Amino acid sequence: MSNNPSQVKELALLQELVQDDMLRVNQRILQSLENGVALIPQLASHLIASGGKRLRPALTIASAKLCNYQGERHIGLAVCVELIHTATLLHDDVVDESALRRGEATANEIWGNKASVLVGDFLFSKTFQLMVSDGSLNVLKILSDASAVIAEGEVMQLGTANNLSTTLEQYIQVVESKTATLFAAAFELGAVVAEQPEKEAPLRQAGLSLGIAFQIMDDILDYSAKQSTLGKTVGDDFREGKITAPIIFAYQQSNESEKAFWHKTLEEQIIEENDLTTAMQIIKKYNAITASSQLAEKYCEQAVKSLGVFPDTREKQAILETIAFCQNRLY
Amino acid sequence: MSNNPSQVKELALLQELVQDDMLRVNQRILQSLENGVALIPQLASHLIASGGKRLRPALTIASAKLCNYQGERHIGLAVCVELIHTATLLHDDVVDESALRRGEATANEIWGNKASVLVGDFLFSKTFQLMVSDGSLNVLKILSDASAVIAEGEVMQLGTANNLSTTLEQYIQVVESKTATLFAAAFELGAVVAEQPEKEAPLRQAGLSLGIAFQIMDDILDYSAKQSTLGKTVGDDFREGKITAPIIFAYQQSNESEKAFWHKTLEEQIIEENDLTTAMQIIKKYNAITASSQLAEKYCEQAVKSLGVFPDTREKQAILETIAFCQNRLY
Repeated sequence: MSNNPSQVKELALLQELVQDDMLRVNQRILQSLENGVALIPQLASHLIASGGKRLRPALTIASAKLCNYQGERHIGLAVCVELIHTATLLHDDVVDESALRRGEATANEIWGNKASVLVGDFLFSKTFQLMVSDGSLNVLKILSDASAVIAEGEVMQLGTANNLSTTLEQYIQVVESKTATLFAAAFELGAVVAEQPEKEAPLRQAGLSLGIAFQIMDDILDYSAKQSTLGKTVGDDFREGKITAPIIFAYQQSNESEKAFWHKTLEEQIIEENDLTTAMQIIKKYNAITASSQLAEKYCEQAVKSLGVFPDTREKQAILETIAFCQNRLY
Repeated sequence: MSNNPSQVKELALLQELVQDDMLRVNQRILQSLENGVALIPQLASHLIASGGKRLRPALTIASAKLCNYQGERHIGLAVCVELIHTATLLHDDVVDESALRRGEATANEIWGNKASVLVGDFLFSKTFQLMVSDGSLNVLKILSDASAVIAEGEVMQLGTANNLSTTLEQYIQVVESKTATLFAAAFELGAVVAEQPEKEAPLRQAGLSLGIAFQIMDDILDYSAKQSTLGKTVGDDFREGKITAPIIFAYQQSNESEKAFWHKTLEEQIIEENDLTTAMQIIKKYNAITASSQLAEKYCEQAVKSLGVFPDTREKQAILETIAFCQNRLY
């Protein structure tokens, strides 16, 4: 799940718990992409094979096991969760490529945009076909609600981008919508298939908190060069003018000339050679990474608290270690 | 439904049949877009208010009435049909804007792309929420299957664009998937809500045939200057290198120098000042509009035949006149 051995170790319990089921999730994903139009499996498998932690479907599997579920439905629903995530990534790529295009407009990139939009749409439709074959209106409600909130979150993010008046509350609202909602649904589905309705709310809440923490960490990593081995390109958010936790904390404390720097780079998007380094220096000066980490930690603690209703089993340990893994990624 | 009085007349029966329900469909569409993120109602209402024939939801209403349905569900399902169509249009815009961008790259257009992708995703998710609230797995299956086929058709179209070896069969397959599938679903839903399962297949088949004819006509209009009042920009398909019926019929009969012209313009996309005029001249020379019209007529006749199981009521007359309206648009 990572090239860093110390981090693999931290997810060892989760991996052990879900690995057999995750093999079947992967097989089903590939099966669901087999069809007459060659571009679909090509493009989608590329994205799916290119890795990622598969954290969201693993959470559905782990949650079902936490609820002592003995059936088969969690496999198909974990597939749905991963396909929704993949469709979102494909459409995010379009949105991000648009920004990159300003520098270098290639026909290749245009072809990529078309394919990403349309294959994303296909994955999304496919997910609903899989949900329909699962046959539960409750599941369909959870995942269609989640999809709508995710899309709203992405639209909200358009409004906060390049806008330094974005508050921490608005940032958290975007993060909760665009990222945490799918974590919440992924967790909640475990209780749904296990038919333990009283466990739906705590699992949903745990997923929401973990998802917020996960996204804050992701946003921190964008200004944390040490972590560049994790696969994120350091500085992408900066170049796109995304207003994330480290920026909000740094901007709050910035002096006039620093504020002018943030306006030039993030709002006007005039970015010169050493501007990313300058940004990271200002962020460091005001301990904005630490403040962001502490915020993520707070959400991790909330996630742990929400799981308090569950007895201390091997399954719970795996989930607790996943939360700890997320927290650890911060530093 | 059109600025042309002669055409309005032809849809008079349909309009009379559906107008009360369509008012409610329009209200529900606007209601479903009300939420906290301002951009969503702005962008979506712009598209929805900008007109269009609302033919697809009208077909659901008409089909429900043809099946003597007395309830309320057809309103919500007509909304779903229109929202799926709107989401598809938004994503088509992204795909088409990409091509136009080659001429004029503006930041405004990039913002438009982002918003179109994400608001399209929202509309699509919203549709599934509405279907879930309708509560029928049968409806969910029909519309999720339709959505997947539409997306496949759009991906297929990427493969036939700029490719003059596209056969008439491949073209019809694209048209059936990307356009006719939603017409088929729109019609089928009428029988579903009326609980007349024996009417599902003939209505589906009628919708499929009508949808294919409708798209062939649309493709004809792109080379028919007279019809430019209908709101289509003549020559868009030509500039994007789409391989449609008029092109396929003209290319089949073209001589060597004409074939070289098609390769230059449609495959290599080198388009000079008078090339659209030349294209239209070659299309006229080989009667490719007439051949395309005859193909559309064949599908219109099939649609009429599929409706043979229905008695000759006012509702059926309205649908038959809709088919005739589509056929008439051809000339």
